[in-house]
Amino acid sequence: MKNTIGTHIICTIFGESHGDAIGVCLDGLPAGIQIDMEFMKAQLEKRKAKDRISTQRHEKDEVRIISGLFEGYTCGTPLTIMIENQDMHSADYDATKYRLRPSHADYTADEKYLGYQDYRGGGHFSGRITAPLVAAGAIALQILKDHGIMIGTHMEQCHKAKDTLFEATNQAIKLQLETLANKEFPTLNEDAEAAMRSVIEQAAQVGDSVGGILESAVIGLPAGVGEPFFDSLESVIAHYLYSVPAVKGVSFGFGFAFANAYGSQVNDAILFDQNKVQTKTNHNGGINGGISNGMPIIIHTCIKPTPSIYKEQETIDRISHEAQILQIQGRHDPAIIHRACVVIDSVLALAILDLYMERCASLSIQAKRKEENL
Amino acid sequence: MKNTIGTHIICTIFGESHGDAIGVCLDGLPAGIQIDMEFMKAQLEKRKAKDRISTQRHEKDEVRIISGLFEGYTCGTPLTIMIENQDMHSADYDATKYRLRPSHADYTADEKYLGYQDYRGGGHFSGRITAPLVAAGAIALQILKDHGIMIGTHMEQCHKAKDTLFEATNQAIKLQLETLANKEFPTLNEDAEAAMRSVIEQAAQVGDSVGGILESAVIGLPAGVGEPFFDSLESVIAHYLYSVPAVKGVSFGFGFAFANAYGSQVNDAILFDQNKVQTKTNHNGGINGGISNGMPIIIHTCIKPTPSIYKEQETIDRISHEAQILQIQGRHDPAIIHRACVVIDSVLALAILDLYMERCASLSIQAKRKEENL
Amino acid sequence: MKNTIGTHIICTIFGESHGDAIGVCLDGLPAGIQIDMEFMKAQLEKRKAKDRISTQRHEKDEVRIISGLFEGYTCGTPLTIMIENQDMHSADYDATKYRLRPSHADYTADEKYLGYQDYRGGGHFSGRITAPLVAAGAIALQILKDHGIMIGTHMEQCHKAKDTLFEATNQAIKLQLETLANKEFPTLNEDAEAAMRSVIEQAAQVGDSVGGILESAVIGLPAGVGEPFFDSLESVIAHYLYSVPAVKGVSFGFGFAFANAYGSQVNDAILFDQNKVQTKTNHNGGINGGISNGMPIIIHTCIKPTPSIYKEQETIDRISHEAQILQIQGRHDPAIIHRACVVIDSVLALAILDLYMERCASLSIQAKRKEENL
Amino acid sequence: MKNTIGTHIICTIFGESHGDAIGVCLDGLPAGIQIDMEFMKAQLEKRKAKDRISTQRHEKDEVRIISGLFEGYTCGTPLTIMIENQDMHSADYDATKYRLRPSHADYTADEKYLGYQDYRGGGHFSGRITAPLVAAGAIALQILKDHGIMIGTHMEQCHKAKDTLFEATNQAIKLQLETLANKEFPTLNEDAEAAMRSVIEQAAQVGDSVGGILESAVIGLPAGVGEPFFDSLESVIAHYLYSVPAVKGVSFGFGFAFANAYGSQVNDAILFDQNKVQTKTNHNGGINGGISNGMPIIIHTCIKPTPSIYKEQETIDRISHEAQILQIQGRHDPAIIHRACVVIDSVLALAILDLYMERCASLSIQAKRKEENL
Repeated sequence: MKNTIGTHIICTIFGESHGDAIGVCLDGLPAGIQIDMEFMKAQLEKRKAKDRISTQRHEKDEVRIISGLFEGYTCGTPLTIMIENQDMHSADYDATKYRLRPSHADYTADEKYLGYQDYRGGGHFSGRITAPLVAAGAIALQILKDHGIMIGTHMEQCHKAKDTLFEATNQAIKLQLETLANKEFPTLNEDAEAAMRSVIEQAAQVGDSVGGILESAVIGLPAGVGEPFFDSLESVIAHYLYSVPAVKGVSFGFGFAFANAYGSQVNDAILFDQNKVQTKTNHNGGINGGISNGMPIIIHTCIKPTPSIYKEQETIDRISHEAQILQIQGRHDPAIIHRACVVIDSVLALAILDLYMERCASLSIQAKRKEENL
Repeated sequence: MKNTIGTHIICTIFGESHGDAIGVCLDGLPAGIQIDMEFMKAQLEKRKAKDRISTQRHEKDEVRIISGLFEGYTCGTPLTIMIENQDMHSADYDATKYRLRPSHADYTADEKYLGYQDYRGGGHFSGRITAPLVAAGAIALQILKDHGIMIGTHMEQCHKAKDTLFEATNQAIKLQLETLANKEFPTLNEDAEAAMRSVIEQAAQVGDSVGGILESAVIGLPAGVGEPFFDSLESVIAHYLYSVPAVKGVSFGFGFAFANAYGSQVNDAILFDQNKVQTKTNHNGGINGGISNGMPIIIHTCIKPTPSIYKEQETIDRISHEAQILQIQGRHDPAIIHRACVVIDSVLALAILDLYMERCASLSIQAKRKEENL
Repeated sequence: MKNTIGTHIICTIFGESHGDAIGVCLDGLPAGIQIDMEFMKAQLEKRKAKDRISTQRHEKDEVRIISGLFEGYTCGTPLTIMIENQDMHSADYDATKYRLRPSHADYTADEKYLGYQDYRGGGHFSGRITAPLVAAGAIALQILKDHGIMIGTHMEQCHKAKDTLFEATNQAIKLQLETLANKEFPTLNEDAEAAMRSVIEQAAQVGDSVGGILESAVIGLPAGVGEPFFDSLESVIAHYLYSVPAVKGVSFGFGFAFANAYGSQVNDAILFDQNKVQTKTNHNGGINGGISNGMPIIIHTCIKPTPSIYKEQETIDRISHEAQILQIQGRHDPAIIHRACVVIDSVLALAILDLYMERCASLSIQAKRKEENL
Repeated sequence: MKNTIGTHIICTIFGESHGDAIGVCLDGLPAGIQIDMEFMKAQLEKRKAKDRISTQRHEKDEVRIISGLFEGYTCGTPLTIMIENQDMHSADYDATKYRLRPSHADYTADEKYLGYQDYRGGGHFSGRITAPLVAAGAIALQILKDHGIMIGTHMEQCHKAKDTLFEATNQAIKLQLETLANKEFPTLNEDAEAAMRSVIEQAAQVGDSVGGILESAVIGLPAGVGEPFFDSLESVIAHYLYSVPAVKGVSFGFGFAFANAYGSQVNDAILFDQNKVQTKTNHNGGINGGISNGMPIIIHTCIKPTPSIYKEQETIDRISHEAQILQIQGRHDPAIIHRACVVIDSVLALAILDLYMERCASLSIQAKRKEENL
């Protein structure tokens, strides 16, 4: 469905980096949700470039809700959020208009849109399009929180610098998420922050860029959400995550480390504790057979280094195909991974909310539990 | 959409491991495709358990096409493939009926289906449901091949044993895929096969299991396939891959290794060679901005060790919640990763075909290329 | 989505009239529904050709549920119903293989499927494909009935003969539906039955055919089901109804008679009675703004005369395009409208159940009613 | 999908009558279409209230394309059209805030959205939301025209006054559509216009309203577009048409008149003329088996009288449920049917374009025609 996703909460994004406006439309939101605009603004603030380790394009990102909101509450009809583009320096892109930027979408957009794409600032491929996703995600996060479901992301790794990992239980992670919510630079460990900032600054100084890995947790999701096959929790979550530009890897729980483990080492023993079915370990990241088991959902997302670097690169002219040396101009991030945390939280919230509503639908007309029939 | 996926080629799977039959319905197949039944059978043969490193359940897997085929050709209407279940030992599951198997879907199915799920042999969660996927995938692979698109998968890693990786170019990979197509045990390197067989047999001897990583390549896909956001090539491919039981990680190109690289190291320089835009390296795995760039699509899929091990495990009774020791009975695989290659090929083929048809749709009514208008 | 429809209850049909089997797959059914197989058989019996006013093809229509059912209850996974084809006289169609039958799909299938369609007995276009729809509909009708929602259809008109119409209230219609449920020939009025049988027999005697109008009622559907725009109750119901072969008109409530009425004559005054918001009249057929208002949903469906008539007809050869006189062979119905009632009930049930589940989803996570917040 | 529709051209509408703005997002448009803004404006002009037979709310309806357009051409990414609301008299609705307007969506919205809906001016249920549909439709009409496909609608009937009908052939209808395109009041016959204007004015004088029937034609659509079952041309067209407020009936070709005809009277004899397969008559309205046959697609749409009348009506208070007499205030149309023609053209264009693109997709990778294989 291209730029639209979701079964219950149908999310459509639109806009180009240097066009009039960017935005998002959310259809299917329950009526009667009092939107917390302060939270939405705070989320957008987290996504913003704020310091020397980020781009110098400074957009106000003032959100305007142009439909679906009445007297502060969702009215049940499509809620559309618009953000006008303002601080554009389109001329920066004239020099590279005919030089395909390596590892960007310049060539692929050219092939797909036959030359008609808006090339300025990356157009629809710009990371800027994630701003409306963050605004939409803020609403999803708010609804989920009202149902006891929390989501948070920290920087597991940035280049060589590593953070500590999430704890194993819902309760322990809850405390970690509360701390993270107030941090400007999303690490669990203070030393990790310093190390990562240093890594990014060093890359910036030499005109280079770095990437990393994010670890996300979803806690409070009841067991039974997800589908056995094509809409497995992993399928749907990965689908949303891979929509975010620069994501090149997604794994769950023990992730790629499963590859050299024995079954006996990574099977999660089951126990009954605090009146709840739980597992002793959580290698499966809260998901079995595509369905949540009540343990924390743990997700790892790999973000590649931003392709816009100031170092010279080999490329070709997009029309003549002649070899060229490209030196990118404009304002770019040496790393977007710290700004990506809130984007990942946002798309996770949209994914989880969609599946959670499906669960509500089927449960509410379902027969009684089998054992109770006996 | 639960057990249905696809926009153009709509694939619906059904069946339980010990039910009457399992099957798949493919809607949207072009009319006039002469189905190569020998190829379909050969693919199913690859998925089968054949030796001591696999389960001893031996299903004939005789496919019966009950609709959509007329005089050997697809007739354009839904093509339904049915495989009757025969070699079932349902009694094997009575002992564990009330003991939740760790890292299986027993508990999550119980929560989702309120106790009504068919628990025998894993029911709808069984790896057996991938047999119809392989049959469906055989048709997709055949159509893609007719359009010059080839797909193949090898065992990149099985526990500690590693295979060599795919080459960097379409031409070189083509040769590798042709070799792989005839191999019973899908490695590129003969030594790797021996090492992996040994790893699996050792695990089997101690009642344990192993997993690994698969590397897949899609070659011949033209540039311009995929969407910038929610239907990025990565999103759609990951969605299909995560439908396969036991998949816990999916990455593209350089994958999680992007995390500690500099942009200048992993950006793929662009050049024009053999009358084609190409990249010098292929860290991005053939995808930029969610869209194919004409280079080989490279995908890594992590398969966790099969959770059915013969070693004793801690669990609980699903009704009383009392602690139990579980010793799994029945016939199980110490590894499914070698049998998973053909399943991965199959779902990749379904994913790629769906996106490829979208491309055909938009291209065929599209305006001329911009430059040509000047 | 071609042969698949639905958001919550995803229904996929397959099969050709003279192929191996026809069938349907229902995904999304809640687990724990004890399927009433006797009711399903009774519904299929109603659809069958039984007397001289129907085709002489006599199919047993033995339904086989090959997945999704365990110990008599739905297990939450895709439920697939298969009906094997048996009483086929494919040779009857050889003579007309190259003569396009007027008002049939022969030519359009030829254009769509490029000559590869299964032409025997109308292939996938055959009315026979409605048998699985009836089986699927039986399940939907059963679930709806458990939630107090009833659906029924009678022959409002057959050629010149007319039946009385449904009453205006849910209670009165309930009695009418209970009577209809036991009738072999679905009219409300006994005299209408005699007149309609006579009309059909007369048409049969001269090798001709007749059509008519069906009136359907859905009662017990709570207010608030449906969507304001693209999934209005009317949109979704019409979508399903027009899937049934031979349907050429669909209208709601006062239908086309609205065209020459004044607003003051057809606006439905609102009153509060029996602790329920009701309308004095029901010109709007229970739907305002695309959403149910709690009054009976009233639908009119026009069925064209069956195109298979024994009279000579002008046509052309499908390859040479030469003019031909066609005299149809085989076994055909002089009217299908009486057999169509149960088909209409079935697709209505599938449509209503899908929308009803959506309502359950959004309600179950919704905020409290606005007034209650004050 | 609530407020989103389409497989290839995904159309999402949003906005409330007295909210900030209304709009539409079109995703999937081919890149490189030079949008004819003058045509779009002309179409919106046709929808506008212009004289004494229409509402006195005068909106400029200035369309602003905020994404998806670059240098005058579609760039392949979501094209979003926004229309700001300006001439709102929200106070007009205060008096009726608590009185449910008969045959409006006040009560159903209240049940669906639990009191949170934006009630002002009908909110999301307002006919005003059709303005963005007209803007979107203008683009679809333009693309179709470039492919030789034309769509037009005239007022077949307004209360008792009737127009002549469309001719039977593509060529003859083409001339009629060209004439209609320039008419302010869309009738084929001048006398019909006078009679209809008179009918509407008379209704207006007594504070009443009228409805009618629209006849639409789609010409130039190649044979082979549509699907045999759930996406039959009739299903999809009816789905889109019933999205338009006030539509209560949709029929094709001979429509409800099929009910009292014999098969021999209404079967369309097939002939080969002008190097094209054609039918002698067109009772089936260009569709057989859900698929276009190359003859004109003929559709009849019944529009009910506008429910906003100035006469006193019986209703209840929405909170207390006490009986009330309602006298509607504000600015309302005594008829919307003449303004509805362009809306019907627009949704038809969106429906036809979506199906036409599906056809392009399947054809472009399809095998050769069967006969050619021999």
